Amino acid sequence: MAKALNQLVQSLKQLPGVGPKSAQRMAYKLLLHKRHQAAALAEALTEALADIGQCQRCRDLTEQSVCSLCSDSARDASVLCVVESPLDLLAFEQTGSFRGQYFVLHGQLSPLDGLGPSELGLPLFASRLAEGQIKEVIIATSPTMEGEATAYYIQQLTDAAQVRSSRLAQGVPMGGSLELLDGATLAQALMNRH
Amino acid sequence: MAKALNQLVQSLKQLPGVGPKSAQRMAYKLLLHKRHQAAALAEALTEALADIGQCQRCRDLTEQSVCSLCSDSARDASVLCVVESPLDLLAFEQTGSFRGQYFVLHGQLSPLDGLGPSELGLPLFASRLAEGQIKEVIIATSPTMEGEATAYYIQQLTDAAQVRSSRLAQGVPMGGSLELLDGATLAQALMNRH
Repeated sequence: MAKALNQLVQSLKQLPGVGPKSAQRMAYKLLLHKRHQAAALAEALTEALADIGQCQRCRDLTEQSVCSLCSDSARDASVLCVVESPLDLLAFEQTGSFRGQYFVLHGQLSPLDGLGPSELGLPLFASRLAEGQIKEVIIATSPTMEGEATAYYIQQLTDAAQVRSSRLAQGVPMGGSLELLDGATLAQALMNRH
Repeated sequence: MAKALNQLVQSLKQLPGVGPKSAQRMAYKLLLHKRHQAAALAEALTEALADIGQCQRCRDLTEQSVCSLCSDSARDASVLCVVESPLDLLAFEQTGSFRGQYFVLHGQLSPLDGLGPSELGLPLFASRLAEGQIKEVIIATSPTMEGEATAYYIQQLTDAAQVRSSRLAQGVPMGGSLELLDGATLAQALMNRH
C-alpha cells in the first residue's frame, strides 16, 4: 500500500469507533469518489484546531473566550447544571426545559486514568461558587459508579460553599416498558414514588 | 454550537458509516483529547490528496504513475485479475496465492448511477488486452446481479480479443456450516461438484 495512503488509514483508525477495515474503506472512498469532501475535512480540522478552545467560565467548546451560553444575559445565572460532556449539554439544550447555565467536566473522576479534580476543572468550579452568584447546582453526572463518585465530590464543594445541590431524578423512562427495565432502576422508581 | 465545530461535524458526517451522533462524538474527542491526532489526520488527508493518484496500468491507488505491483517484474504479466475495488485486491494479496497482475474497476456497471464502461476504465482494459501480453483474465467481480452484469461485459471484451477468461469458483465457504448456507450457493456447490 502506498505510504501516504497507509498514513491516512492509520490516522482515520484513531477516530472513536473506527476499526482497521472501516478506516481502509473511508480512505479509499475519500481518495476515489470524495476528494472534494476530503479537502473540506482537512480544512475543517485545521480551522477547528486553530479556532476552538474552552470557555473560560463553563469549559464548553467555543470560538470565543466566553461561550454564547455564558454571555447570554437572558439565562438564569443562579442555576448551574454540571454535565460530563458537551454532548450532555446539547441533550439538555434540546429539551428546551433548562434556562440556567452549565459547567462541563469533560469526564468523570478516575484517578487510575489520571483524571483528578483539576483535570475536571473543579478548581474553576469552586471559584465560580465562591463568586456568590450561584444559588443552586444541578449535578447531572451519569448514573454509573464513576458518575456517582464525581457527584459526591462536587456535592462536597457545594456543601462547603453553602450552595444548594440536587441530582437528576431516577426512575422509569418515558414510554419505557416496565418488564424490560432493570431491577435497580425499578427499585429506585418504587422508592422515590410520589 | 460554534461554527468551526459545526463545520467539522458536518465534514465527519460525510465519512462512510458515520452518522450525526458519531460525528459529534468524533469532533469532541478530536478537539478535547486528541488534538495531536486531529492535526495528524488533517496533514495525512492533505498529503494523500496531493500524492495519491491512480496507476496508469491497473487503476489501483498509488503514489507513482505505475504502481509497485505493475512494475514488479517478478509477477506474471500474462494473468490479469479484474477486481471491483482496491480492498478486493488487498484481500487477494493477503491470500498470497496469486502471482499475476490486477486491474481495478472501482465499481460495478450501473448505468442508473452513471457508472458506464468508461467510468470503470474498460477502454484502458481493452487496450491492455490489445497489447497481446495477457493470456488469461480472471474476472473476480462480486457474485451479485451488478457484478455478474459487469463480468458478462468484461467477458465480451476478452472474447473479442481472443483471451481466455475465467470466473472465481462458487461453492461452500471453508469452515462454513451447510445448514446456515443459502439455497442458491448450496445449489451451485452441488452443480459444480468435483
